[in-house]
Amino acid sequence: MLVIGERINSTRNGIREAIKARNAAYIVKEAKTQIAAGAYYVDVNCAVTSGDELQDIDWVISVIQSEIPDASICIDSPNYLAIERALKVYSAKGSLIINSITGEDARIRQILPLAMEHNTSLIALTMDENGMPNSAAERFEIARKIFDRVRREGFPTEKLYFDALIRPVSTEPMQAQEFLHSLPMIKKLDEVKTVCGLSNVSYGLPNRAVINSTFLSMAVQAGLDAAILDPTDKLVVSSIAASRVVLCRDGYCAEYIKAYRDGKLI
Amino acid sequence: MLVIGERINSTRNGIREAIKARNAAYIVKEAKTQIAAGAYYVDVNCAVTSGDELQDIDWVISVIQSEIPDASICIDSPNYLAIERALKVYSAKGSLIINSITGEDARIRQILPLAMEHNTSLIALTMDENGMPNSAAERFEIARKIFDRVRREGFPTEKLYFDALIRPVSTEPMQAQEFLHSLPMIKKLDEVKTVCGLSNVSYGLPNRAVINSTFLSMAVQAGLDAAILDPTDKLVVSSIAASRVVLCRDGYCAEYIKAYRDGKLI
Repeated sequence: MLVIGERINSTRNGIREAIKARNAAYIVKEAKTQIAAGAYYVDVNCAVTSGDELQDIDWVISVIQSEIPDASICIDSPNYLAIERALKVYSAKGSLIINSITGEDARIRQILPLAMEHNTSLIALTMDENGMPNSAAERFEIARKIFDRVRREGFPTEKLYFDALIRPVSTEPMQAQEFLHSLPMIKKLDEVKTVCGLSNVSYGLPNRAVINSTFLSMAVQAGLDAAILDPTDKLVVSSIAASRVVLCRDGYCAEYIKAYRDGKLI
Repeated sequence: MLVIGERINSTRNGIREAIKARNAAYIVKEAKTQIAAGAYYVDVNCAVTSGDELQDIDWVISVIQSEIPDASICIDSPNYLAIERALKVYSAKGSLIINSITGEDARIRQILPLAMEHNTSLIALTMDENGMPNSAAERFEIARKIFDRVRREGFPTEKLYFDALIRPVSTEPMQAQEFLHSLPMIKKLDEVKTVCGLSNVSYGLPNRAVINSTFLSMAVQAGLDAAILDPTDKLVVSSIAASRVVLCRDGYCAEYIKAYRDGKLI
């Protein structure tokens, strides 16, 4: 499973303060730790800093790539101008994924050309002008519309990751199942992949890693390809390693045993 | 999910010694601990003691029911004479489940009448004269034959639990998936339930609870109704509690939060 490290997110106090203070060492350490723990992409979200998001995301990406020349970044912003700025400053030799478009026309018109120009992958949230869907079928219907549109405009659909939007089980107990049911439906769209922002599922509950890791195992079984998560969480990492064993994606359990020996499992 | 506590099994050194020494306190403590941890049935397996299995199972069940008047027991033996003896001595006010029949004619002819006479539930392993099946379809085919036969003989099929036989992923890496695929197939047989001996899946691997709990989450999602497991394993118990939350079987997450407060989660 493709892991996108969630930790460089300005909703976290330490990151917000490091961005404000231009503490490069803090940011670089968070990036390196996540990559060492198994993250392929490092998510960068500067949306809730107190400063200027464009300057902040420019600075964060600059400091990461100055220390990690092959860093792959997930550019995470509700503001397409911040995405544009991030694409402009990115010069590392890794890959890029943009997080995110939705089914909203304005958002697609702003961001799709940027993704195509810069040859990035693209996360599409299954929501649109009518808000967040409730059922698996509604999620699929929005995904299908986005799929048809971006394919028509020439975007390579194998670089499209659908995020069917997990909501907290504590407040919307049926939504985790609807998310899980939507995965095999969405995966029938030619070549597309699926992703989720894992920790949303456990918001408001104690021992969140228990809910996160259990839900992740079920989602991987249902066809999840990627997740935005904390790769330093040993329980979540353990469940990814074990899922690969159980679903026969880890020949001779070699990666699992290596993760155990490296002290990465709980 | 129905939990059958696996710990009173003569393959475990402590249990084998306690049986040999007629150490009633040890056995009763194992039973009480498992029930307190959430086991509905306590599995009793005396098959590999060095003494006489019939006398041993008689003694173990006697000491459990003398201290726990409503104990529910899973009578676990390859020897129908031991099962017959256990049924004779059982007088507690709980429920009984017999573990197990297979598709083999002799085994069904020996045990089915005992189950019907004593009004017990019954675990049926999906194996027969030809040995252990490899694919999900073969597992289902054996289950279907057993189902047809026991129904024809008047056994109430809602008391039938199919065990589709987990094998270790370390040596047979495809078998976990075949087991998972077989669950929804078997569940189409009218009213039947499914069960597994959980820890088999992780045999030979380190950090077995990680594999066990991940596999269990996937199996619950695929339709598993019951499992023979160690209810004192906090990681496994945590994954059961979290699975119930994710699959919307724990209204308002009340049981999960109670388990957390009672210190039952990792």
